[in-house]
Amino acid sequence: MVSKVKRVLIGRPMKSAEIEGEKLSKLKALAVLSSDALSSVAYGTEQILIVLMAAGFAAVWYSIPISVAVLGLLLILILSYRQTIYSYPAGGGAYVVAKDNLGVSTGLLAGGSLLVDYILTVAVSSSAGTDAITSAFPSLHDHRVLIALIMIVFLTLMNLRGVTESASVLAIPIYLFVVAIFVLIISGVIKYLMGGAHAAIPELGSTVSNISLFLLLKAFSSGCSALTGVEAVSNAIPNFKQPSEKNAAATLVMMGVILGCMFTGISLLAYWYGIMPSEKETVVSQIANSVFGRGTIYYMIQGITALILFLAANTAYSAFPLLAYMLAKDKFMPRMFMARGDRLGFSNGIINLGVLSAILVIAFHGNTENLIPLYAVGVFIPFTLSQLGMMIRWIKLKPAGWVTKLIINTIGMLTTLTITMIFIITKFSHVWMVFIFLPIVILTFYQIHKHYENTACELRINLQDEKPETKSSTIIVPVAGVTRVVMHSLSYAKSLTDNVIAVYVGFDDEDIERMEKKWEEWNPGVRLIVLRSSYRSITRPLIKFIETVEWKTHETDHLTILIPQFITKHWWQNILHNQTSLMIRAILYARKDVVIATVPYHFQR
Amino acid sequence: MVSKVKRVLIGRPMKSAEIEGEKLSKLKALAVLSSDALSSVAYGTEQILIVLMAAGFAAVWYSIPISVAVLGLLLILILSYRQTIYSYPAGGGAYVVAKDNLGVSTGLLAGGSLLVDYILTVAVSSSAGTDAITSAFPSLHDHRVLIALIMIVFLTLMNLRGVTESASVLAIPIYLFVVAIFVLIISGVIKYLMGGAHAAIPELGSTVSNISLFLLLKAFSSGCSALTGVEAVSNAIPNFKQPSEKNAAATLVMMGVILGCMFTGISLLAYWYGIMPSEKETVVSQIANSVFGRGTIYYMIQGITALILFLAANTAYSAFPLLAYMLAKDKFMPRMFMARGDRLGFSNGIINLGVLSAILVIAFHGNTENLIPLYAVGVFIPFTLSQLGMMIRWIKLKPAGWVTKLIINTIGMLTTLTITMIFIITKFSHVWMVFIFLPIVILTFYQIHKHYENTACELRINLQDEKPETKSSTIIVPVAGVTRVVMHSLSYAKSLTDNVIAVYVGFDDEDIERMEKKWEEWNPGVRLIVLRSSYRSITRPLIKFIETVEWKTHETDHLTILIPQFITKHWWQNILHNQTSLMIRAILYARKDVVIATVPYHFQR
Repeated sequence: MVSKVKRVLIGRPMKSAEIEGEKLSKLKALAVLSSDALSSVAYGTEQILIVLMAAGFAAVWYSIPISVAVLGLLLILILSYRQTIYSYPAGGGAYVVAKDNLGVSTGLLAGGSLLVDYILTVAVSSSAGTDAITSAFPSLHDHRVLIALIMIVFLTLMNLRGVTESASVLAIPIYLFVVAIFVLIISGVIKYLMGGAHAAIPELGSTVSNISLFLLLKAFSSGCSALTGVEAVSNAIPNFKQPSEKNAAATLVMMGVILGCMFTGISLLAYWYGIMPSEKETVVSQIANSVFGRGTIYYMIQGITALILFLAANTAYSAFPLLAYMLAKDKFMPRMFMARGDRLGFSNGIINLGVLSAILVIAFHGNTENLIPLYAVGVFIPFTLSQLGMMIRWIKLKPAGWVTKLIINTIGMLTTLTITMIFIITKFSHVWMVFIFLPIVILTFYQIHKHYENTACELRINLQDEKPETKSSTIIVPVAGVTRVVMHSLSYAKSLTDNVIAVYVGFDDEDIERMEKKWEEWNPGVRLIVLRSSYRSITRPLIKFIETVEWKTHETDHLTILIPQFITKHWWQNILHNQTSLMIRAILYARKDVVIATVPYHFQR
Repeated sequence: MVSKVKRVLIGRPMKSAEIEGEKLSKLKALAVLSSDALSSVAYGTEQILIVLMAAGFAAVWYSIPISVAVLGLLLILILSYRQTIYSYPAGGGAYVVAKDNLGVSTGLLAGGSLLVDYILTVAVSSSAGTDAITSAFPSLHDHRVLIALIMIVFLTLMNLRGVTESASVLAIPIYLFVVAIFVLIISGVIKYLMGGAHAAIPELGSTVSNISLFLLLKAFSSGCSALTGVEAVSNAIPNFKQPSEKNAAATLVMMGVILGCMFTGISLLAYWYGIMPSEKETVVSQIANSVFGRGTIYYMIQGITALILFLAANTAYSAFPLLAYMLAKDKFMPRMFMARGDRLGFSNGIINLGVLSAILVIAFHGNTENLIPLYAVGVFIPFTLSQLGMMIRWIKLKPAGWVTKLIINTIGMLTTLTITMIFIITKFSHVWMVFIFLPIVILTFYQIHKHYENTACELRINLQDEKPETKSSTIIVPVAGVTRVVMHSLSYAKSLTDNVIAVYVGFDDEDIERMEKKWEEWNPGVRLIVLRSSYRSITRPLIKFIETVEWKTHETDHLTILIPQFITKHWWQNILHNQTSLMIRAILYARKDVVIATVPYHFQR
């Protein structure tokens, strides 16, 4: 049953050898990996304008130079990550680069930030997508959490189906979004040039009395939130078709160009059309309204934008499992994140991401907006560390043209560091959690690592000197009466060793006498030990007895407890049996070094 | 930890031999077993008046003859159950009497009704008690369900502590209630006789135009709800101190007398003081108000009445586990209901009652009033069956004075049958569920019985002919590498038999080759079989292999699968190991007749 449902939802299992077919072409990769970055266009310009409005309408012209600065940063990031891709063709996320050049702790700091960040991405963007839906259909407002959860389940299932299939499904809305935004920008520019826009706008360079550097920096850092998601490509190099690093680099550049054009276009249009951010209508919506009026095209643009905000989460679904895999390979995360599922994806990573983000959505009742600054900091910390790592690498290795490369990374590092600091300073009340959360995450990584190291050390043997040694064996068989199950168990025990002891726990004299008599009559060739339980517990006297035997024989014998286990035909029949055997097993497990053997007895009826 | 908490809540475990000390004296038994019956006084008269008011104020004088009729029925029930107690000194609930004289199905009908009824009692009376509390403190109204649940938890814990301890705690409010009602009645009568009541009341015997037989019967049956709980004593005879049947009979008579006096008193006062039922104030409250005014005594009476309604549930806590025990002894209910817990009570029955009634309270959001008619029917069906059973018994056995006894039971049977019919006819919309529910319960009883019978039949062996036989043995050891755990498992396996097969599941050629080489180097004296898994599943190829070996050897060999199991030092470390062994065991359990032996390996760090 379960496996049938699984097959319908996820598809047939795939052979390990089929993995090459699951790799991404450039165009599909763009769809899978860029949804987070490209969707930022929908709110990036708006974030800048909101901050600037604090200094009055006259200050909005600053959005143009700030946008240029953001574009510059984008350029630096793209160049820098392009360098990373060629340097780390096996996958060069911030974790790998930082670990490789700055040491393990720094790597874990970058990796931990990113992991947390991906979870936030899914929670925030599924909530944002839900907001878009409920804005259109207010009657759904009470079901916000449910809608966000359905979306998370959908994304999780798509990603469990496998990389290429999810790419095929998800590519369409992303390309539609790109087309829609370009149509909007081109039409807007044409309309403006033909004199169709009549807004009174402050001129570029006009003086604004109450503008401060702090405000400008804050506006810049807010605009930088449009750049989250840029690192996704460099994490995912192993997912690309061969030659993977070349394809990845090309994809990254493609993404950078598209993102840059869209961001520039939206920022310019917002300025030209004199658009002010409003609580009631997004900037993109206002632009679309000014350009097309509230017609079919307007509603299509709005719908696609809502959809893309939803799908921004998908980038995290590619990046989280890969990063978790890398951390697990280095023994900083549980081994289960290394296993490929039926469809060759890292299912455990995908499922964990889905579950954790669903928990966040439920915990915050779908109001995850407050998590956005946290999420931006979580991106810029690894950005900075990754660039710093590349700097060290150039200085150490000094390959051809290393000075240029070093300069690019240095500029990138300084910029992203500055942005991180601005975020922390200007939005401390939102991001302080990072300083509690990250140390806990890193500590957990180290704890896990220590456990694996200890385990490996304990389990290691010397192939030359240590070989299996045989001992003699004692088997204890708890019996509850003289039944077919007991006979079956004794047959088994006697086949293995001559030291078989049957143990019976009796509650009163009458009971004990009856059992002893019956055993004598049966005479199965096995000694019966009868224990008396004053407190009506079967397990306590039994375990005491086992401890005694263990103490007496542990030098010479392997001790086995043979427990008959009824397997009923229907699950509900289990309630009709006292399951003492399960209890005995649970107790013995935790405490003793005895072998517990279960003899199943399948009821026929 | 768990056991410490348990000890604080429930007390130290008691030896089986201490059971005699847990038996009830007459006074304590009265407290434990009569709360349900006595608390009925708080609403019995009111139920009659509510029905009569449908025919106008002039009809209220009928409450006096109807009360006399209810008293008569009480007398018959007491006499009849006294006869039952002496006939069934081992406990003569309706289940036993009906089963013994009318056959198993009838017994199960009576037993099933009572079981369901006890659950309803707890749910209804804890909700009623909560209503009393929230009437006094309206701010608590939003926490009704919580308060009712707290009360159920409290009662469950008290009863888990044991019969006498719960009696000691619960006796006080019950005796206080009896005293309070008697004070009210005596003061009320004195005040009336001294001319202190001036209500205009319809004279006894005055004609009422629109009264009908149907209405009178309905009023009578409503008044009979005051008699629920009378059967509790006859169920609980084994709980009494020796001589148990004499003590039980005396307790029953005591209870009958107290109940009769209180009921008569309240009905008379209600008539004399011209009290009309009101939605806003209970009849008892009105009487207390008329007699004492709203002073300290009034509030004390109200408080104690609320408390006693709460505690009415406690009768069910004595009766349910005993009845479940009897049904389990006859193999109609799961065996677990036969086990005595740490404090010698039937813990499973107590816990099940608590949980089921809590579920009812939650499902009905604490509004369980609609369940009251259901609950009355559930009482009167077994009343009728029990009396019918006694009639058959007298006719069959014909002991000295059997005619009188037969007459008593016949009158009782006819009356309770009539009341049952009236309930069903006048309140069908509330009680129809009985006709769906009871058949399901009885069917379940039979299913359980069949399963136990089948099991016993399958397990039975012929002591003379069937003895344990030895075979040879094959042990399969799945290995994941060359580690200390594997060495440990192989040592164990080689100690038991020479036929040991190690199995390794590899994912790719490189992997397989490495393992084969290492095994050769180690040379542990055990053959290694390597399986290749194209789908990255360890369990599937392994189970296929086990099936092959089983098919080849099942004639001659016992087959054992030896699974190493890591036991980590801290629970959270379990997540760091893939628990493949648990999965293999779970799959093998359900399907195969192989023995599964677990070799524990306890990590030191």
